[in-house]
Amino acid sequence: MPIERIAILGTGLIGASVGLALRANGYTGQITGWDPNPAEQATALQSGAIDTLTDDGISAAKASQITLLAGPVFTILEWLDKLAPVLQSGQLVTDVGSVKNAICKQASGKYNLVHTAGFLPGHPMAGKEVSGAANADGTLFNGAAWLFTETPESRSMHKASRALAEEWREWTAKFGCRVLDLDPERHDVLCAWVSHLPQYLSTALSALLEDEFPAKDEMLAVGGRALREMTRLGASPYSMWRDVAHTNTEAVAATIHALEQRLAHLRENLKTPELRDEFERANQFRAQMPPRKQ
Amino acid sequence: MPIERIAILGTGLIGASVGLALRANGYTGQITGWDPNPAEQATALQSGAIDTLTDDGISAAKASQITLLAGPVFTILEWLDKLAPVLQSGQLVTDVGSVKNAICKQASGKYNLVHTAGFLPGHPMAGKEVSGAANADGTLFNGAAWLFTETPESRSMHKASRALAEEWREWTAKFGCRVLDLDPERHDVLCAWVSHLPQYLSTALSALLEDEFPAKDEMLAVGGRALREMTRLGASPYSMWRDVAHTNTEAVAATIHALEQRLAHLRENLKTPELRDEFERANQFRAQMPPRKQ
Repeated sequence: MPIERIAILGTGLIGASVGLALRANGYTGQITGWDPNPAEQATALQSGAIDTLTDDGISAAKASQITLLAGPVFTILEWLDKLAPVLQSGQLVTDVGSVKNAICKQASGKYNLVHTAGFLPGHPMAGKEVSGAANADGTLFNGAAWLFTETPESRSMHKASRALAEEWREWTAKFGCRVLDLDPERHDVLCAWVSHLPQYLSTALSALLEDEFPAKDEMLAVGGRALREMTRLGASPYSMWRDVAHTNTEAVAATIHALEQRLAHLRENLKTPELRDEFERANQFRAQMPPRKQ
Repeated sequence: MPIERIAILGTGLIGASVGLALRANGYTGQITGWDPNPAEQATALQSGAIDTLTDDGISAAKASQITLLAGPVFTILEWLDKLAPVLQSGQLVTDVGSVKNAICKQASGKYNLVHTAGFLPGHPMAGKEVSGAANADGTLFNGAAWLFTETPESRSMHKASRALAEEWREWTAKFGCRVLDLDPERHDVLCAWVSHLPQYLSTALSALLEDEFPAKDEMLAVGGRALREMTRLGASPYSMWRDVAHTNTEAVAATIHALEQRLAHLRENLKTPELRDEFERANQFRAQMPPRKQ
């Protein structure tokens, strides 16, 4: 029973990219899109990421087999509450939220019961520093990990919902993703290190440079690839990262604090042999990185 | 009087890339290469970056109109001392060192006098995280800044050396560089912010992750572009960055300390409206970045 009706709630960068990826990989069913911003909806429609737009996300979800929640974390939390009472077993809600423990807790007791819809918590490790449907790309997920953080509750969802969940996992594999399963708490700690810390670090560096160089001509004329690269994520939107900061606070704070201490250690050792050891550890880390996608 | 004899002392990534860039842009004269590592010399010869190799850098410099010093900063400082007594007016030494104040001071009183060679302090803002002649690229400098930090002394070099200096500046423009002039002390402060800080930051982050994840499979499977990008410079060699740490210590320490404080500020404000202000400053910074080369 292939999926024929999908609702995407949130047709920005990730939501619209999922729509394009579905089409690029042979999905022939309906895709209805809702977004709080009418311009995002219109762009997603124009690009073919969705084929119908609606201003009623609840009705769209009720009429769909799969509802994809593709907004910031707080928006996902709100939709989980709104949709639980109106959906039923044999329907599936899944999401793309960057933090999973808070989302899994919100779904607990409201989904994955005998008479409720299933909830499959998901998180594609792909994105861009620019947001919006205009930047969507059907190949965005190619080569990335798509993480699922199932819980004992989600593992016992109704079998009709489970069939949809399995099919959704297959779609993410078709997008070119490595499909991985993680415990939600472990997910949040891992993502604090590999995703959230790099983001807040790039934001802090960019903000610092913004203050340090009120006139930027000279600094920008001199700067090369290192500057561009280390500040790229400085363009990322607050709207998304506020929610991550609020819902993964402890893990994020711990990683930032560890980096502060590491920087202080390096600074205090600029002229000692410990600097060599730090470079060797860093070289060792990079030697184990897989080759770059493309 | 076009330049016909160039010696490159240090045929690693930057030295060999300069040789290739010279050839790619129509230089038809001699290029003699010296390197402490015979394998680097052989690779540079094989790629056409140099046409003659020598184990006697001093003789090569004596027989050349221009000698390019293309090693780490301490190596450049040593060559400046060795070459000053054996070269004469009408010859030019130039360099690619990442720190300029220490290098200009070393040259002071030994170059740019009536009977001595000229010294033109230079610094191309281009590089890679991987070193060695095997990674050399004749287009490496295309779109980058090539900084010159002339001093009152260098401005009064012998007119025969000056002619070579002007011609060398023209070559760097032919490589595709924006040719810029800066005061040496200003150069070192600017480069601490846009180049040295990003490097030590990426090293600290990479070393931290190396310690935090003794087993890396899970972390690397989850990590995406943000992780790859923010740790790319973690592969950079200690040999080069030790010398920067030793010769630009004060400026580098100040930038690292400022970033530590900024990270602490962001960490303490993960759940306050100040986080929004930091993202806005970072967004503002990136909005002023010129579009990426290629």
